[in-house]
Amino acid sequence: MSASKGLLTLGESMGIFVADGIGPLEHARGFTLGVAGAESNVAIGVARLGGSATWLGRLGPDSTGTLIEARLKAFGVRVLAVRDTAHTGLMIRYQRSGQFIQADYHRAGSAGSRLTPADVPRDEIRQAGILHVTGITPALGDTCRAAVFHAVEEARAAGVPVSVDVNYRGKLWSRADAAPVLRDLVGRADIVFAGPDEAAIFVDSGDALDGLAKLGPSEVVVKDGARGCTALIDGERLSVPALPVTAIDPVGAGDAFVAGYLADRLAGAGAGERLRTAIASGAFAVTVPGDCEGLPDRAELAALTGGDINR
Amino acid sequence: MSASKGLLTLGESMGIFVADGIGPLEHARGFTLGVAGAESNVAIGVARLGGSATWLGRLGPDSTGTLIEARLKAFGVRVLAVRDTAHTGLMIRYQRSGQFIQADYHRAGSAGSRLTPADVPRDEIRQAGILHVTGITPALGDTCRAAVFHAVEEARAAGVPVSVDVNYRGKLWSRADAAPVLRDLVGRADIVFAGPDEAAIFVDSGDALDGLAKLGPSEVVVKDGARGCTALIDGERLSVPALPVTAIDPVGAGDAFVAGYLADRLAGAGAGERLRTAIASGAFAVTVPGDCEGLPDRAELAALTGGDINR
Amino acid sequence: MSASKGLLTLGESMGIFVADGIGPLEHARGFTLGVAGAESNVAIGVARLGGSATWLGRLGPDSTGTLIEARLKAFGVRVLAVRDTAHTGLMIRYQRSGQFIQADYHRAGSAGSRLTPADVPRDEIRQAGILHVTGITPALGDTCRAAVFHAVEEARAAGVPVSVDVNYRGKLWSRADAAPVLRDLVGRADIVFAGPDEAAIFVDSGDALDGLAKLGPSEVVVKDGARGCTALIDGERLSVPALPVTAIDPVGAGDAFVAGYLADRLAGAGAGERLRTAIASGAFAVTVPGDCEGLPDRAELAALTGGDINR
Amino acid sequence: MSASKGLLTLGESMGIFVADGIGPLEHARGFTLGVAGAESNVAIGVARLGGSATWLGRLGPDSTGTLIEARLKAFGVRVLAVRDTAHTGLMIRYQRSGQFIQADYHRAGSAGSRLTPADVPRDEIRQAGILHVTGITPALGDTCRAAVFHAVEEARAAGVPVSVDVNYRGKLWSRADAAPVLRDLVGRADIVFAGPDEAAIFVDSGDALDGLAKLGPSEVVVKDGARGCTALIDGERLSVPALPVTAIDPVGAGDAFVAGYLADRLAGAGAGERLRTAIASGAFAVTVPGDCEGLPDRAELAALTGGDINR
Amino acid sequence: MSASKGLLTLGESMGIFVADGIGPLEHARGFTLGVAGAESNVAIGVARLGGSATWLGRLGPDSTGTLIEARLKAFGVRVLAVRDTAHTGLMIRYQRSGQFIQADYHRAGSAGSRLTPADVPRDEIRQAGILHVTGITPALGDTCRAAVFHAVEEARAAGVPVSVDVNYRGKLWSRADAAPVLRDLVGRADIVFAGPDEAAIFVDSGDALDGLAKLGPSEVVVKDGARGCTALIDGERLSVPALPVTAIDPVGAGDAFVAGYLADRLAGAGAGERLRTAIASGAFAVTVPGDCEGLPDRAELAALTGGDINR
Amino acid sequence: MSASKGLLTLGESMGIFVADGIGPLEHARGFTLGVAGAESNVAIGVARLGGSATWLGRLGPDSTGTLIEARLKAFGVRVLAVRDTAHTGLMIRYQRSGQFIQADYHRAGSAGSRLTPADVPRDEIRQAGILHVTGITPALGDTCRAAVFHAVEEARAAGVPVSVDVNYRGKLWSRADAAPVLRDLVGRADIVFAGPDEAAIFVDSGDALDGLAKLGPSEVVVKDGARGCTALIDGERLSVPALPVTAIDPVGAGDAFVAGYLADRLAGAGAGERLRTAIASGAFAVTVPGDCEGLPDRAELAALTGGDINR
Repeated sequence: MSASKGLLTLGESMGIFVADGIGPLEHARGFTLGVAGAESNVAIGVARLGGSATWLGRLGPDSTGTLIEARLKAFGVRVLAVRDTAHTGLMIRYQRSGQFIQADYHRAGSAGSRLTPADVPRDEIRQAGILHVTGITPALGDTCRAAVFHAVEEARAAGVPVSVDVNYRGKLWSRADAAPVLRDLVGRADIVFAGPDEAAIFVDSGDALDGLAKLGPSEVVVKDGARGCTALIDGERLSVPALPVTAIDPVGAGDAFVAGYLADRLAGAGAGERLRTAIASGAFAVTVPGDCEGLPDRAELAALTGGDINR
Repeated sequence: MSASKGLLTLGESMGIFVADGIGPLEHARGFTLGVAGAESNVAIGVARLGGSATWLGRLGPDSTGTLIEARLKAFGVRVLAVRDTAHTGLMIRYQRSGQFIQADYHRAGSAGSRLTPADVPRDEIRQAGILHVTGITPALGDTCRAAVFHAVEEARAAGVPVSVDVNYRGKLWSRADAAPVLRDLVGRADIVFAGPDEAAIFVDSGDALDGLAKLGPSEVVVKDGARGCTALIDGERLSVPALPVTAIDPVGAGDAFVAGYLADRLAGAGAGERLRTAIASGAFAVTVPGDCEGLPDRAELAALTGGDINR
Repeated sequence: MSASKGLLTLGESMGIFVADGIGPLEHARGFTLGVAGAESNVAIGVARLGGSATWLGRLGPDSTGTLIEARLKAFGVRVLAVRDTAHTGLMIRYQRSGQFIQADYHRAGSAGSRLTPADVPRDEIRQAGILHVTGITPALGDTCRAAVFHAVEEARAAGVPVSVDVNYRGKLWSRADAAPVLRDLVGRADIVFAGPDEAAIFVDSGDALDGLAKLGPSEVVVKDGARGCTALIDGERLSVPALPVTAIDPVGAGDAFVAGYLADRLAGAGAGERLRTAIASGAFAVTVPGDCEGLPDRAELAALTGGDINR
Repeated sequence: MSASKGLLTLGESMGIFVADGIGPLEHARGFTLGVAGAESNVAIGVARLGGSATWLGRLGPDSTGTLIEARLKAFGVRVLAVRDTAHTGLMIRYQRSGQFIQADYHRAGSAGSRLTPADVPRDEIRQAGILHVTGITPALGDTCRAAVFHAVEEARAAGVPVSVDVNYRGKLWSRADAAPVLRDLVGRADIVFAGPDEAAIFVDSGDALDGLAKLGPSEVVVKDGARGCTALIDGERLSVPALPVTAIDPVGAGDAFVAGYLADRLAGAGAGERLRTAIASGAFAVTVPGDCEGLPDRAELAALTGGDINR
Repeated sequence: MSASKGLLTLGESMGIFVADGIGPLEHARGFTLGVAGAESNVAIGVARLGGSATWLGRLGPDSTGTLIEARLKAFGVRVLAVRDTAHTGLMIRYQRSGQFIQADYHRAGSAGSRLTPADVPRDEIRQAGILHVTGITPALGDTCRAAVFHAVEEARAAGVPVSVDVNYRGKLWSRADAAPVLRDLVGRADIVFAGPDEAAIFVDSGDALDGLAKLGPSEVVVKDGARGCTALIDGERLSVPALPVTAIDPVGAGDAFVAGYLADRLAGAGAGERLRTAIASGAFAVTVPGDCEGLPDRAELAALTGGDINR
Repeated sequence: MSASKGLLTLGESMGIFVADGIGPLEHARGFTLGVAGAESNVAIGVARLGGSATWLGRLGPDSTGTLIEARLKAFGVRVLAVRDTAHTGLMIRYQRSGQFIQADYHRAGSAGSRLTPADVPRDEIRQAGILHVTGITPALGDTCRAAVFHAVEEARAAGVPVSVDVNYRGKLWSRADAAPVLRDLVGRADIVFAGPDEAAIFVDSGDALDGLAKLGPSEVVVKDGARGCTALIDGERLSVPALPVTAIDPVGAGDAFVAGYLADRLAGAGAGERLRTAIASGAFAVTVPGDCEGLPDRAELAALTGGDINR
């Protein structure tokens, strides 16, 4: 795999209104409108770390769709947007108190949930360095699920490595509904990312890394927040501890982790280096509020890990 | 009809994000979250003018639903909210330039569009002074349409006057689809409000007032923005010129007009007074940005019409 | 006492301008205008926890008075406002540094301080489930003091339980001036809330709970911030530890505590449950900036105590 | 009179909270805190036009008092503040609609209203180039009235010209109460400023300029907003038309006018030049929102009158 | 010339801090940071109208440089940025009053002023559909001037049409210094844009269009704000009146005009159509505050000229 | 030295744009414009602690220069500003993450860097109680360096104590370039402030206090952040531990420390008291965001050290 090839990812990106300050939604003085979406976060993260990244998905005929496209381009992500007649999905996020972040989804029937296999150009997959998908998209509807599996099969046929972030979302489907679909997806992946809770969907007992590896992937990474990560990569067991930072906002840290790993893999780095970059990227993300605002570039990673505080 | 009886209205209220400033959505620095809905605007307007008003509709299980309920109560409106499992509808409004206001609707499949006849308590209708509905609700779906006609029939059976604001919305349905439904609705009304364009849906040629009156209503009011209004009330023809104010925001002016008319009618005022209050209420509304923020109280109306500027 | 009866409380509510950010007042970029008042905070807290609550007080003929009334209604509180010709009192609050919150009172001669016994309708008291007053109101002037004692006597005569939060405020009167008045008030209460410092006003030595109980109340609760609370309720001694939360803003925590206790008492809960709800309500409040923005609903209390973080 | 002598003025300055945007106070997203006061506005205006100016008044022991002092100093005004134990007065201003600005005064019992004759140092008056007072201060209380007349008498005794802006405020006292006091004050002035309505307090019929001059002042200026001004100065009749500008905010225009006249008088300019500067200063002020933010410097006056738009 | 070829432009882009509201800089509550630069404005304008556009220039090693690059990409402009060790230039803009906009330049020694001929790749010029330069760049320094003339000569050699916007800036150089340089530049252009004042730099007397055409360009366009424009294109004289819009902010209107003309020329439109698009694009821009926020897309132009207001 | 004499300091003050919130500059919603400059910070700090303070420096012909002058005056600092034709320097500061604050300097060629010996009036120095300079100014250019040494020599000649804060800035010059200049400067000082890293510039090995004292100063203070400070004052060794506060923003803490020491020295306090005030002043500053917003007054220092929290 050449370093010049890039990431291709597909999924739903939504507009997200984030309330200023802390307190009930009724008392919020104002909101900012940003972009939310696990897959586009990973694409942005890879681009900020110097890799090339393409995001593919459906957007509505509205200004939110236009905003999502413009923001991704500003981050250096190539956008393959299919414009739909249904509106772009929206989220509202507010921090009810110092303890609780609340998120309301207004995504039912959205453009993003109407992705189909026909939206995924074969040529784009063949030219990709990695295809990255998540367990969110298959939960959005039948055509979405078909699109994900279609893309994965095309990638496998073309010898393009497939990366899957399990990303189980209880608001979208039950564990019972999700388990067979996600197991099928993981079974087709070369690289899989999961949290301990997500690993438990597939692995009843015993070691999570071994259990996931048995499903097929040759690169299994279990990210465990403040406890760092463990991995089983090409048969080798590795673990990297978390970096000691003060968390401001946990949202987006998982996507930053995945972006760090995949950016380094695209650049040809070894397993240990990929994991260290993943850990640092995730650590940086929790020290910045917002989803994609916390995705670091290489200089910021160096500052974080080298203690080189720029003043 | 005693002055102590109040307005009952039903329809969809949505959360509306309004962008600060003028320019493309991508460049908006922030947003405020408010309440949008023609019927709830009329209810607020009546309450601010000293009448009692009740709004009935479906809200989602989300914080936007809670916010809508709290805001209406703060304005003094009684709320009969049915909580649905579908999310509350959202709108995004921004002012692209000094010439154009842009509105994106994210309302498909919303809680508000799932109103049914069973949501409308017979007792509430029987005790109302006026039932007010609009031509928006029938466009939102079959159960919504049934709910509106059901409420109208209950009111007619109980001798409660029925008010209809035609409110044709081209984004929701075509004129061809709307015409028979709206004609049917107007035919069952005692009071009807329409703009000149809307009147043309029903009246091919000749006088709009006569044409609308022939459909059934005994009180026909044609509001014509900067040209004031004309009316045919109990056989009497009236017209009231517009007040000379500098328009800041036309949104909500029609609802303010209707609220002025209905508040005065509930209070037992004569036809001329109702129209003058309607004109003043609408005039006040255009001098204030926002939908419901511009709805005046009696002191503000007096200041506007009497030139009594409070400094 | 039936659960369907509600809280009645009376006192002064003011407009409060709270500066954005941290630093000297001269450098504040902006302010928000909210509602301050120990008694209205308790009323809001009870309403948010599902109880019914009525607040009674004097408001000025100004827009701040109107705002206070609208905000309380939005929170679901019933308002019995007497409109006065004197202006509504104001406060300015700013956070000078991470260590110090500064509050300036502009309340001398305010409408709220002109409450009189005649403002308190006998029927309202008789129908109340609990009458709640604080030690702030008697410090605001002679007629205020008379109004509080009048209300308490009416409640006692009608068999309505009387709740008193000692709330000693050194900016309003000296301990020497306050002691006899507050002792008299506590002596007429069924339920009393005090901090350790406030208990020391009445109890020179020995146990605070015993000392306060000897003055008359059958329910004595001493709230001690990070140390939790102790109580002597119908002869039974209880204590509940504090919940481990990160405090953001201590303002309003005492009122939230009282609201939790009284809401549960109105709902017929036992002594232990009342105290646990009080502790949780106070704990939630300190994790939210602002006075009344931090008052939780039942779902939020459940999330706090059950560790059920809603993401 | 040497140009190096400055203006001395005394009166009440208050903190003013001005709501952002247009609409009801309840919906204001935020406020800014500024300084309000006719006399301090005039002092700022003189300082910005290059004159020296001193403001004298009472301020409370609160942060608003500190803010007023700092802001005046930043504008180059010398401050002689007497610190009082009563709080600094406050105002709340909001723009209800495009037509109406609403102002609530929270000033009863304020520090500023407790000015006494003893607060006015004889030496300060003797060294002044002009003593400027307004008809607002005598309406604030007996000691305020005494302070104003005391200062005026000291100035007369020392040969310092006395300037009076009538500034009749109907919210503070009735015309009947005000008339004898203001007539007495005008009778002791060398320079008097009045609007047409204010002149009518003193002059029943006939020419306003003649009528006012008969009371004593040798310089009578009637400012009439969009109609410009007329004056009778040392027996000479002059008139200057208004400048054609688009008014954004009329507040403070009168004070800017007075500042323009007095700054030029201190600098030794002739009557016609004083009036042209007054007209231009007032015209500039109406094109800027806020009280004192609109007070121009000499370069800005030149740009306004010379059409020299700096881009 | 094929429609698929794009615009190439080069010059200095700066960060611009724009103050919120109207008034003195000292009183501004906040600022937004945007991108300023006549050439990048034209590039954005062409991209929004569906053309392809490339901007070339020097940026500093700072975050403002990064921001400029990201914003241009978000607008769809291709960026060829040379990173310099000198800082990116800055501007501060505030609206002193309703009449005056004030701009302070902090650009001396900036990265953008260090452009050299070597920064301009020959291949980029050869592949361009149009090379666009302005009279600002030659005023920034010797190497800038050389870079502009070098680019123009390369374009001429390759048969690429050269467009020049005279853009005389009195803050950068005197008319005497500018005249020979600008005359030389215009003499090498195929297309020239000038205001009447700018035309007078070259044309002492007689018709501005003829005079400019005599210098060499086959397409001469004189833009005259509210009076519309006149042109002499391939020997044909045309004029297009202004569109009646309410101007909010004149900044950027000239660049929008140029972008409209060049976008249509790249797309192969005739002379009349180019001018009508230029007029409409400029008209749209004045109804939006900001430099590049007002640049319209094709749908917005259609709405403006067709009266099709999207509500 | 009499307590009535004040501080004189000279250096560069810049406008500083500080981004709201945390995250990349491109995503900042807004900025505030303040004043940055080590020397003006010390002057403000001395003024807030009750001393008199004068700041001398060059400012540009722009509004930022005007703003700096007005802000310093509002803080009570006397300003001796030389107006230059070059623009006022600017900084942009933003918080990239919870870990990193980023500062971009746009100061090359600024007015402030053009200070010359002729700008420093001999009389001002002779009348000063202390002359305070920093190691930043000599790094800004040859004339700046000459101005600093000229001022120092004038002070020495007049018997005015010279204070030097080493303030080595790696962005302005290398340690190799700085060392001889700073050593020369420290050698002429009576009072020197340094951090441990800065002391190492002069003292290769052994005790920092002794090493610095050997260069000449009779008062050597080493400030070491969270570890407090040590000092060698008139041969006596002292140390004061840090106060336990939660740091919010470290910027400006060093200047606050110096201001505390010098204010007390001007007021005639002993060495131990000066250091305790310095420690408390620095501790207060870190609990407030911003450079000069955190400088405390005497009451705030008392509250911090006495635990007298004003609520």
